[in-house]
Amino acid sequence: MNTSCPVMKSDNQLITLAHGSGGKQTHQLIQNIFLPAFSNDKLEMLHDGVLLDMPSSQIVFTTDSFVVQPLFFPGGDIGKLAVTGTLNDLAMCGAKPYYLSCGFIIEDGFSQNDLKMIVQSMQKEAHANSVQIVTGDTKVIERQNGTNLFINTSGIGVCIGKDPINPTRIQKGDSIILSGDVGRHGMAIMAQRQGLEFSSPLLSDCCSLFPVVSSLIQKGIEIHCLRDLTRGGLATALVELAEGSHMDFRIMEDAISVSEGVNSACEILGLDPFYVANEGRFVTFAPKHQEEEVLKILREFSEGQASSIIGEVLEPSASPTVVAKNAFGTQRYLYRLSGDQLPRIC
Amino acid sequence: MNTSCPVMKSDNQLITLAHGSGGKQTHQLIQNIFLPAFSNDKLEMLHDGVLLDMPSSQIVFTTDSFVVQPLFFPGGDIGKLAVTGTLNDLAMCGAKPYYLSCGFIIEDGFSQNDLKMIVQSMQKEAHANSVQIVTGDTKVIERQNGTNLFINTSGIGVCIGKDPINPTRIQKGDSIILSGDVGRHGMAIMAQRQGLEFSSPLLSDCCSLFPVVSSLIQKGIEIHCLRDLTRGGLATALVELAEGSHMDFRIMEDAISVSEGVNSACEILGLDPFYVANEGRFVTFAPKHQEEEVLKILREFSEGQASSIIGEVLEPSASPTVVAKNAFGTQRYLYRLSGDQLPRIC
Repeated sequence: MNTSCPVMKSDNQLITLAHGSGGKQTHQLIQNIFLPAFSNDKLEMLHDGVLLDMPSSQIVFTTDSFVVQPLFFPGGDIGKLAVTGTLNDLAMCGAKPYYLSCGFIIEDGFSQNDLKMIVQSMQKEAHANSVQIVTGDTKVIERQNGTNLFINTSGIGVCIGKDPINPTRIQKGDSIILSGDVGRHGMAIMAQRQGLEFSSPLLSDCCSLFPVVSSLIQKGIEIHCLRDLTRGGLATALVELAEGSHMDFRIMEDAISVSEGVNSACEILGLDPFYVANEGRFVTFAPKHQEEEVLKILREFSEGQASSIIGEVLEPSASPTVVAKNAFGTQRYLYRLSGDQLPRIC
Repeated sequence: MNTSCPVMKSDNQLITLAHGSGGKQTHQLIQNIFLPAFSNDKLEMLHDGVLLDMPSSQIVFTTDSFVVQPLFFPGGDIGKLAVTGTLNDLAMCGAKPYYLSCGFIIEDGFSQNDLKMIVQSMQKEAHANSVQIVTGDTKVIERQNGTNLFINTSGIGVCIGKDPINPTRIQKGDSIILSGDVGRHGMAIMAQRQGLEFSSPLLSDCCSLFPVVSSLIQKGIEIHCLRDLTRGGLATALVELAEGSHMDFRIMEDAISVSEGVNSACEILGLDPFYVANEGRFVTFAPKHQEEEVLKILREFSEGQASSIIGEVLEPSASPTVVAKNAFGTQRYLYRLSGDQLPRIC
């Protein structure tokens, strides 16, 4: 890295509209912030696109934009989230991630030091998951308060199992297994926004799920479907999957783990933890006879310690429902999240 | 399309934060605006990612975000631009485009009718280029003035020629051929922003370049490098390519075509057309003996009518330069665009 470049001299210079011009200042930004962090021969070509040799001609492709506020939160930051979020979308298709693109939209007045930290956080997470960030783009928009940064990451991977993993493969009798406790990401963000403090800090569950998914596949679990529990939380994900598979689901509320911190924060803010976003939790649909084996594998990972079997797939249905049964035996239907509990959560 | 859905009842409902919640309103947006336009079986799976069968395991991958203002401009809109911009990045690598992702970041208060028009414009351009939009994401950010929309498109393609096309293949003696007149896109946007009117309207050159690139490759042109002349214009692109190839270039200013409208607008606004953004122009580096054949092919396309041979590649150089010679024989060096002439041009 050329530290003598003027753009790096100050302790904290700011992004300006000129950094989005495609000219000299864009070049400096690429040379001083992006290339040193993401360093790889594909990106360094600086051509309009990148040529990639994939291990198969059958690939998985996904995209996600991230607009979370605040950018730095307990347990992560927008950079970590932008990498793990897209890796997790690939993992939910049973795909090993290979390459990511990243598109930055930065507000005029944004701190270059913050941008550097976020970019380094992206690279750390990419490296930890053996993926490369191979192509990118930067735009700058007019100043409002100088704190806005939006990141799009698109990802390419290749399936590691032999069978497809998607909602249409969900079958009658499948067990529904939850990978851990729910509501951490959303409540960590909300607690920080509201200035709430708890005896133990509320950390986001933001993490890459490929290692645990890979382990499930390698160990022979016949996975029918996977879904990460992001915006809309567990409840919305289950409703989407019931509709996608045309099946009724039944879940047991008591089997769903919610930490004390998340519970307290949800009570204070009047939120239902089943609807709060997660960034490192998912549900697995697998044959009932393998449910204990799934649990055993999930619990080999720190993020899977609180995993549990939460329900089952009932019958095919023309108007699929998700029924949640509580300890008193009463039932309620789950619906998609309505309105917006938590704007800009991811 | 279910026209009885409440979200479609009004003539012009607005996007709200709830449309970014991942819940019920996001679902309505997808069902009522995105799926009817982009309709294809891959997208309709609504899974976290999409499984794609490519004709080869060697693929080209690119990404671009679009923040242009105004969203609708003479000759196009942000939707057309978001599709052609990414298709053109693939074309510049000699790749036939296959699939696109799209990530929308929409401001609370944005017109749903405008969003529909933009999405339909994306689909029209995708269809015209035989590509599918197969995966997407939508986020909503807080309201400022209700007119902001940012679109990221990432693209996947496959090379149609046998040799790679990139800056390292530029050779001493190569001819530099410009595909048409320069400065239209930038000046169309600026003229609209400034309320300038000309006797003939100034239209953006925004268009897909794959058909003309495909024709160059199919007809046996030994293309060493291609580059579209977006932000920073012709001058910045040439400087980048000189540096990327470690070669000196010489160009003849008089050979570069600039329309009367662009010239007038540039004079009024004090801009150099060589630095103004284009969205449907590119330079080709090819062996000198094929330059006339390149011109002949370019001129078979409406966007190539004003194409010309503008210069040549000189010697390898440790500090590469681009020299522009004018009609009086005097010379000037070209540099990257410094500062920002035209914020949010693409």
